[in-house]
Amino acid sequence: MAQAPRPLLLTLGDPAGIGPELTLMAWLRREEGIAPFAAVADPDHLASLAGTFGWRVPVRAVAPSEAASVFDEALPVIPLGERVAGARPGRPDPAQARAVIESIETAVALVRGGEGAAVVTNPIAKHVLYEAGFRHPGHTEFLASLAAQGGEEPHPVMMLWSETLAVVPVTVHIPLSAVPGALTTDLIVRTGRIVAKDLRERFGIARPRLALAGLNPHAGENGAMGHEDERIVAPAVEILRADGIEATGPLPADTMFHARARSRYDAALAMYHDQALIPIKTIAFDEAVNVTLGLPFVRTSPDHGTAFDIAGRGAARPDSLLAALRLAARLSGRDAGS
Amino acid sequence: MAQAPRPLLLTLGDPAGIGPELTLMAWLRREEGIAPFAAVADPDHLASLAGTFGWRVPVRAVAPSEAASVFDEALPVIPLGERVAGARPGRPDPAQARAVIESIETAVALVRGGEGAAVVTNPIAKHVLYEAGFRHPGHTEFLASLAAQGGEEPHPVMMLWSETLAVVPVTVHIPLSAVPGALTTDLIVRTGRIVAKDLRERFGIARPRLALAGLNPHAGENGAMGHEDERIVAPAVEILRADGIEATGPLPADTMFHARARSRYDAALAMYHDQALIPIKTIAFDEAVNVTLGLPFVRTSPDHGTAFDIAGRGAARPDSLLAALRLAARLSGRDAGS
Repeated sequence: MAQAPRPLLLTLGDPAGIGPELTLMAWLRREEGIAPFAAVADPDHLASLAGTFGWRVPVRAVAPSEAASVFDEALPVIPLGERVAGARPGRPDPAQARAVIESIETAVALVRGGEGAAVVTNPIAKHVLYEAGFRHPGHTEFLASLAAQGGEEPHPVMMLWSETLAVVPVTVHIPLSAVPGALTTDLIVRTGRIVAKDLRERFGIARPRLALAGLNPHAGENGAMGHEDERIVAPAVEILRADGIEATGPLPADTMFHARARSRYDAALAMYHDQALIPIKTIAFDEAVNVTLGLPFVRTSPDHGTAFDIAGRGAARPDSLLAALRLAARLSGRDAGS
Repeated sequence: MAQAPRPLLLTLGDPAGIGPELTLMAWLRREEGIAPFAAVADPDHLASLAGTFGWRVPVRAVAPSEAASVFDEALPVIPLGERVAGARPGRPDPAQARAVIESIETAVALVRGGEGAAVVTNPIAKHVLYEAGFRHPGHTEFLASLAAQGGEEPHPVMMLWSETLAVVPVTVHIPLSAVPGALTTDLIVRTGRIVAKDLRERFGIARPRLALAGLNPHAGENGAMGHEDERIVAPAVEILRADGIEATGPLPADTMFHARARSRYDAALAMYHDQALIPIKTIAFDEAVNVTLGLPFVRTSPDHGTAFDIAGRGAARPDSLLAALRLAARLSGRDAGS
């Protein structure tokens, strides 16, 4: 008998957010090209939530190796030690933090141990975890710490990916005024190398083309509007090219994201959060997927938050989670047909 | 006999750029809903250029009052005193600067004198004009100086407009590092008032809805990523609302430009150049029009530059100029059917 295919592992996320209902919806829409996945969660909580919506989602507690074979008939759930009792949609509660964290730790451990194909994370609310003693700046940094080898943490790089555009912000969650100071040639080069490597090894693009945005309007227009593009970005492009990476830039950011321009590169490196996220959320709001590059395993997540304001109504759109599951399957070398 | 309708006045722009060939193309495509316009230019230069392309564009030197009646049969040209002799596509020459400037001055004077309906400007190259002694920071500032009344210049506001999105950058051509310091509540309020006024009076929107972007990622997330959104942008929104303007914000910039979000406002105020221009150039690269608000006359222009690199080939796309002519006609209260 062939070995059972390894399932994608979908974490709990904040149980008061839309993650749990999206998990149920994703299973209901499994025929839309979704590879077998298992929720790393509390089976009773998910079964009970399905009941409140009146959705026919049989929930089955399984071991990772059983997930793929039950997936057609039931939502496979790898049970946590922690229960998710008393979770109420829209009412985040630090009492759930241990289950949230256990789910992430378990999913990573299973994938690293070869029992899962990839980690797909439902959204968490950092401030809820902080109240429970969580000490990492965010979800991605926590995953990087779980990926440490020999005491060294990998440098995780956030990519927002859709079928039509992939963007990477070189600096991320910092004030705009801090961006020029935080931007260094070394940071851009490190980021570009990780992006190029993962585009090659995970996305199967033999010669990845990177387009680097300028920091300033018109990429500084030869210094007329700021010198960072000449002094920081341009040297990074040179170093990446010397590495053999097809990098271009610094390009004026406003003219690099329309359809014709996008066809010239595989990923755009933006210098700050909104420069990356405005274009992709403008054209692919519901379908964009967050994928973390630079980790020793595949991790994707939907490109939205916990949405406490609409949780519990069954009104959330699962498009981004479905896209995250599809991309995780593709990147981990399997698809729904395998 | 009814008075002849006033023509739109199309300036020369840099004669070495794509402006002249776009002018010819716009006349050739006049049946696509283009109101009568006259070029303020050198008839011989345009006739000769049409000849080099082999385009059938009869050129007629006219007085402004004759333009509309000849428009069906010939391209009306209001002749400059300066000749545009020896202009070569792709080879900008400071010797042409006087004609470029005369065209702008003439168009403004005619519109202010009631002989033209609106000014539509072809792109200029500032560095070429600087060499010839031009002393204004840019095209728009020059127009504002020509619009001065009683020694006081109006505050011109640049809007990028398309059928699906209109954006206004509150700060424009400055380095990104200078943006947080240049951004004041007063500047945002002055800009918002001009936008609301022109949307009412020129665009005919009875209750304009303005959406103001936050400066920082996630609009600062309650100060976690910068304080400008709480301290500078939010008070501006309050003042505009106290004025009776339907203003909302500060909104996270990345999630305010997708189709559903755009339906909630008539114009977005962005805090800096790329925050405004990235979304509109991503979704409406060929059709976006630059319209200057706050002037005592209507001024539009195509949203591209002189494009010296492709000038003279007849390969430039006239879409943006056609859109600029259509919008100028609409804003000046006339259309192709009048």
